[in-house]
Amino acid sequence: MRRRGVKNLDKRLEESSNLIVKDPISLKGKWNTLFNNNNPIYLEIGMGKGDFIIEQAKRNPNINYIGLEKFPSVLIVAYDKLKDLGLTNLYLVVADATNLLDMFEENEVSKIYLNFSDPWPKKRHIKRRLTSNTFLPKYEVILNNSSTMEFKTDNQELFEYSIISFNEYKMKFIDISLDLHNRLDDKGNLLDIISTEYEKKFVSKGNKIYFIEVGFNHE
Amino acid sequence: MRRRGVKNLDKRLEESSNLIVKDPISLKGKWNTLFNNNNPIYLEIGMGKGDFIIEQAKRNPNINYIGLEKFPSVLIVAYDKLKDLGLTNLYLVVADATNLLDMFEENEVSKIYLNFSDPWPKKRHIKRRLTSNTFLPKYEVILNNSSTMEFKTDNQELFEYSIISFNEYKMKFIDISLDLHNRLDDKGNLLDIISTEYEKKFVSKGNKIYFIEVGFNHE
Repeated sequence: MRRRGVKNLDKRLEESSNLIVKDPISLKGKWNTLFNNNNPIYLEIGMGKGDFIIEQAKRNPNINYIGLEKFPSVLIVAYDKLKDLGLTNLYLVVADATNLLDMFEENEVSKIYLNFSDPWPKKRHIKRRLTSNTFLPKYEVILNNSSTMEFKTDNQELFEYSIISFNEYKMKFIDISLDLHNRLDDKGNLLDIISTEYEKKFVSKGNKIYFIEVGFNHE
Repeated sequence: MRRRGVKNLDKRLEESSNLIVKDPISLKGKWNTLFNNNNPIYLEIGMGKGDFIIEQAKRNPNINYIGLEKFPSVLIVAYDKLKDLGLTNLYLVVADATNLLDMFEENEVSKIYLNFSDPWPKKRHIKRRLTSNTFLPKYEVILNNSSTMEFKTDNQELFEYSIISFNEYKMKFIDISLDLHNRLDDKGNLLDIISTEYEKKFVSKGNKIYFIEVGFNHE
């Protein structure tokens, strides 16, 4: 979801204080020095406009969050929401998932979130899907052993594809829901789901969100 | 879906000619002698009123079909539909999936169908679900190596549970659909889905059918 015609984008990114990490490669293996603590690092790949990860960071001060977004024109929207909140546990990075191994050391990450990733519906673009085996080996390297990845989407085909892809890569399925927002807890209450902007609109129309949590079988 | 008060049930089963196999255990390892050929054997577990397997048998004369149903009062409905069709490639058996290994030899079966299996929604009954690991090891024994199992249901919770269960048992996911009846082929046409009675009613109300095809990773 690239946005066009954002005014003075380069200048604004440049002046964005340190909330947007300019040189993520230099932090490989030492992101804890940026956060100034050794709390676990949770990574959202394709953060979009930031609603999900900002809310996560607000609610969980003892977790460090990094939001990756490849389009600067989109990331700047998240930055505008974030800049006056005073959070010290969330940083944003303009980056592509292709380069994950340049930015993160083995086992450096404790959770990966994929929310409403680009479905790349055409067959010839399958390898670009963030749940394809182009990316799974990279996630496996940077995630530490007991960690998991959580993936949400409203796109039925992408979800079907991803289940097959995860299974083929011999991942462990921990949790799944075919209608996340109507899921009940043990007491029969709706769960408190942290949503993206897109998700809120979609759910308000009565549509279903698919969810899966998976881990890697490190052998 | 037990039915009550079917008149003269025992007598009718007794007189049902040979289309209802009375002693399936005696056929273990030699079902081909019943069919009088060596065609592959496809098994539906929980056949219900028989619509699905009768239609399969009509369309595929070179496949041998066996329909298992544990409630005689339900099986007799399938028998009534079948008895005048003159099919020689379909037999019915009153039997419970628990006893599969008494009835079939290793590798004797080339396909298993589970259609709209009882969801057993209560936690204490999970082990009774036909997709639980109570039954998966039995399916693994009787299915020959390259064969698969196809499972359809409209029950969201049972489907979610089954995906996790299959993954845990390290099965191979071959195909999946979260809306089988709206699936299109490569040319954009709807597929020709052979449906159960229950399924036809359910789909006509606009509800979704979940589908998965899985295999065993014989190692």
